[in-house]
Amino acid sequence: MARPSKPKLNPEVIAEAALALVDKHGEFTLPQLATSLSVSASSLYNHVQGKDEIVELMRGRAMAVIDLPESQPESWQQTVRLIATAYWSSYSKHPRLIPLLTSHTVRDRTTLRVYDALAEAFSQAGFEATRRLQAITIIDSFVLGSALDAAAPQQVWEPDDSSSPQFTEALDAGLPSAQRAQSTFLLGLDVILEGLRSVPRA
Amino acid sequence: MARPSKPKLNPEVIAEAALALVDKHGEFTLPQLATSLSVSASSLYNHVQGKDEIVELMRGRAMAVIDLPESQPESWQQTVRLIATAYWSSYSKHPRLIPLLTSHTVRDRTTLRVYDALAEAFSQAGFEATRRLQAITIIDSFVLGSALDAAAPQQVWEPDDSSSPQFTEALDAGLPSAQRAQSTFLLGLDVILEGLRSVPRA
Repeated sequence: MARPSKPKLNPEVIAEAALALVDKHGEFTLPQLATSLSVSASSLYNHVQGKDEIVELMRGRAMAVIDLPESQPESWQQTVRLIATAYWSSYSKHPRLIPLLTSHTVRDRTTLRVYDALAEAFSQAGFEATRRLQAITIIDSFVLGSALDAAAPQQVWEPDDSSSPQFTEALDAGLPSAQRAQSTFLLGLDVILEGLRSVPRA
Repeated sequence: MARPSKPKLNPEVIAEAALALVDKHGEFTLPQLATSLSVSASSLYNHVQGKDEIVELMRGRAMAVIDLPESQPESWQQTVRLIATAYWSSYSKHPRLIPLLTSHTVRDRTTLRVYDALAEAFSQAGFEATRRLQAITIIDSFVLGSALDAAAPQQVWEPDDSSSPQFTEALDAGLPSAQRAQSTFLLGLDVILEGLRSVPRA
């Protein structure tokens, strides 16, 4: 029977509805998802195998916005910077998705292609296998933490009467910037790229 | 009336029950919290003003484990390393608490004392006010992202047939380590401390 008032069910529609639930509640269940789409839980299973697959669909949706450099960039640092910046920008729009994604094994191809590119960049830089995984993870962790910072309220900290002058002075100077989170993320990325120069690569 | 079967209600008991809900569901509401404590929502309000205060109590609970160095450490890097490591260790036990905390303004004194100490360390290192806030935020973001990594499944990534050899080789070498997350966090912290040496401090 035609039900023209409902969007046609497919994996993209399911992932979008799950993301809306996560943005709002920090989590989703299949019964909640079915309710939000006005379908039965069993119709969801005609399109996805279960929660794990929906998590991977949400991950793929967030990672799809990352355009990998088509031509060889000038340097491996440039590749890492391009990827990390797009990644940060996408995740800072969905902060509550972050712990859900990090608690699931990454299987989505759209996401794996980004890690392929990071691994190639660090390999080009001479990082041997174990160091390469560490470098990837350091960038990954910094991007995700910084995306949470980008989603923080405008006043991140409210000092009190006991706060040290060194801290309140820093807050007075730094918090008012409209681009606080972005400029700090970009500085931190450069700090990490600079610091990685001194790490033994094998 | 004495109700000996219930734990006496106080802010600590409320924060502990809220943390159990967040660990399990990624979120809590006051009605859920009242149910989990077998009390009415109105009895909660005899002890806390509302959700914001409970979030700050949970934050304070997680930050209370950080022992600040009593005597002046050898270097500002040593202070930052001590604080960041304890902070990482505490938050990696409660990954789902992280986005809830980062979405609320920090008001808890137990937490503010940690930022006071970080601000003093970076001030000692010569970082002027704006740079000081950026340095604190970079450390903060890296700790939180790394705490999420520490809570990741043992297999963080599952490569597929299209995965690049540079990535699969890194996974084969690096993922099997039992201390993968901790050793990567400690390396990343050193990378950031090294990279911060090259940042103009004013």
